[in-house]
Amino acid sequence: MPIITLTTDFGEKDHFVGAIKGAIYSESEDLKIVDITHHINPFNIQEAAYVLQNAYKSFPKGSIHIIGVDAELNPENKHIAVKLNEHYFIGADNGIITLLSSEFNPEKIVEINIHDRVESVFPVLDVFVKVAAHIARGGTLEVIGKLTTSLKPIKQLMPIVSADETQISGNVIYIDNYGNIVTNISKKLFNSIRQNRKFELSARNHKFNTIYDKYSDLVNFDLDDNKRDYDGKKLAIFNSQNNIEIAIYRSNLNTVGGASSLLGLDYRDTVSIKFIEG
Amino acid sequence: MPIITLTTDFGEKDHFVGAIKGAIYSESEDLKIVDITHHINPFNIQEAAYVLQNAYKSFPKGSIHIIGVDAELNPENKHIAVKLNEHYFIGADNGIITLLSSEFNPEKIVEINIHDRVESVFPVLDVFVKVAAHIARGGTLEVIGKLTTSLKPIKQLMPIVSADETQISGNVIYIDNYGNIVTNISKKLFNSIRQNRKFELSARNHKFNTIYDKYSDLVNFDLDDNKRDYDGKKLAIFNSQNNIEIAIYRSNLNTVGGASSLLGLDYRDTVSIKFIEG
Amino acid sequence: MPIITLTTDFGEKDHFVGAIKGAIYSESEDLKIVDITHHINPFNIQEAAYVLQNAYKSFPKGSIHIIGVDAELNPENKHIAVKLNEHYFIGADNGIITLLSSEFNPEKIVEINIHDRVESVFPVLDVFVKVAAHIARGGTLEVIGKLTTSLKPIKQLMPIVSADETQISGNVIYIDNYGNIVTNISKKLFNSIRQNRKFELSARNHKFNTIYDKYSDLVNFDLDDNKRDYDGKKLAIFNSQNNIEIAIYRSNLNTVGGASSLLGLDYRDTVSIKFIEG
Repeated sequence: MPIITLTTDFGEKDHFVGAIKGAIYSESEDLKIVDITHHINPFNIQEAAYVLQNAYKSFPKGSIHIIGVDAELNPENKHIAVKLNEHYFIGADNGIITLLSSEFNPEKIVEINIHDRVESVFPVLDVFVKVAAHIARGGTLEVIGKLTTSLKPIKQLMPIVSADETQISGNVIYIDNYGNIVTNISKKLFNSIRQNRKFELSARNHKFNTIYDKYSDLVNFDLDDNKRDYDGKKLAIFNSQNNIEIAIYRSNLNTVGGASSLLGLDYRDTVSIKFIEG
Repeated sequence: MPIITLTTDFGEKDHFVGAIKGAIYSESEDLKIVDITHHINPFNIQEAAYVLQNAYKSFPKGSIHIIGVDAELNPENKHIAVKLNEHYFIGADNGIITLLSSEFNPEKIVEINIHDRVESVFPVLDVFVKVAAHIARGGTLEVIGKLTTSLKPIKQLMPIVSADETQISGNVIYIDNYGNIVTNISKKLFNSIRQNRKFELSARNHKFNTIYDKYSDLVNFDLDDNKRDYDGKKLAIFNSQNNIEIAIYRSNLNTVGGASSLLGLDYRDTVSIKFIEG
Repeated sequence: MPIITLTTDFGEKDHFVGAIKGAIYSESEDLKIVDITHHINPFNIQEAAYVLQNAYKSFPKGSIHIIGVDAELNPENKHIAVKLNEHYFIGADNGIITLLSSEFNPEKIVEINIHDRVESVFPVLDVFVKVAAHIARGGTLEVIGKLTTSLKPIKQLMPIVSADETQISGNVIYIDNYGNIVTNISKKLFNSIRQNRKFELSARNHKFNTIYDKYSDLVNFDLDDNKRDYDGKKLAIFNSQNNIEIAIYRSNLNTVGGASSLLGLDYRDTVSIKFIEG
């Protein structure tokens, strides 16, 4: 049977996550449940979309992804189930699935309409689990919802290229567990505009002229160990999602801090790249 | 085979939880393990009982719930296994299972007596896992323990109704991941005393005259989006456990704070409701 | 199929752990994945080794342990797969597996050489998962790596016994979820040197003349409940790994603090035991 994943802002202390897993296994003990995260900042749809987008594609086709963020049903927050890139997503139409669909067009969208048949004080438990189990058993979306074609429109932070192609202006879109700063400027966009020119990447008053392919490319391994002094140095790299990231070498958010706190860069802040002719 | 759940105060950094899971799978790889939580405040039996009570009922009948909170064996902290509401609970007789049994009478209680047969410096690993595996294989409680009839008595925070039924006085019993305050006043008790009267709910100097059924009932969806100003507003609702809860609309404990910090309400604080005739 | 465990410093918010689990299930849905921890302090190899060492032995023989700490491939951080004590370990040769091998000699070590065949911007996802799946399917280490014999040497904090055997000098090697302080002085070493003598254990200005076998051995259960005043008292015990530990009775790191903060003892600090003749 397919895998069901959970992406929520419930945290891991309360009973919510345990209760949902119990409800899923009560539908069928053959289901496999995987936590993607329960630590989305409350109601942060951009963060939920970022984490889910970078995780779901590793799962087998046909996996079912429950999104428990800002999921209360109300007139402006319909419940939907969406097939997209051969995966299923169940959540509220609050913009998260819109963000996912910027990369792949939805193959099918339904507005869930089984609310009259199930209690729903806790819709992730009462409604989404039922929908997920239905899909897992091979049921079609049309049985649990009404076909629709549009998702809630949402403004996404997108990088801007100047008309003369001398500059890219992007934004911080995520801060990770190490405090590193992920931007929305992709390696692909960077390379397509760069055209072999030199460049200067700026974030606040910090400047970078190199973008590494991995963290330790910063290190000169020919130096003696005691002559190396890299810990805490800032660097720009293409990260594992192929986005430009600003990092502190071997940073520890719990002690010295990460790039975000050390460089004073936060979610939505501007990061720009100026290209310089030969 | 039945599901084994874990509710502990071990946190998720140390080796304890991993070691327990390894020990369970060493008993049988066909067992299914579900974490309810490992973030109970150390030794907090009320919190453990609250989370477990609201999670266990979603699991299939016959599930086995290991409780790793205040579990060290000592003359006043016997190890017990209890069948209650067709679920099995394994833990110390420290009050947690007493609290669970306020809702359902135990069907069977045994004092575990296999300590001579297993090492027990770490009883959750050494003793509780063995007992859980025994039950999972269909073994009876009598084989691993001595039948007994009573659980450690414990004082529970219970709401009080005034003799003239003009007032209910309850307490804060839990603060959730969003900082929202859960009281021990149930919807059922509230409605049975209310009898169509008006009411005023007070918590410190905060007053509420409405108890909503969901968070977004606070919102007037006829207003233009830019005329709405609900984020951070306080409200009272019946939560998904049908208890009265005091919440902040779309609160984020990490940034603005939650109801607990913003309204100055903490565990055990009084919440009272006064009913007003016609 | 064998169990695959994960020990990382990735935290639980980002997409990394979810993506890895998806990749493992994409290799085979029959695999069983167990989180040991994702909360190792970033790049802390001693901590990773301590947690893994105390967890892995509970798992069935043949289990496969992926280590996602300081795993970036570079000229001084080769990727290795090691068979040790009938378990498999996959990680970087950064000292973690060296520390594990202080207890059991590796049966086989290979330097992983499949990097030309797989992408590796995120080696735990791209390389380690492939290696783990290969081992899980019964494949040999020689197929995915080149046999080698040595691991990166590493200095480990080891207890020192004075030449006249009147003193043991050890160190704090771990601070657990309760704030308790674990030392590298084992019960076995302590007993072999002690020889029935009296002793004084010192840590900073704190002295202990008793080492208990469990926390509640501190308590005199003959006293009336209201005459007991043990919460917050310091004590030394042999912990569940049979190391000497300094603890605070029923400490709560979130409120009163634990032994580490209350007694001013931190990672690497000295703990010494003086033995006194008759």
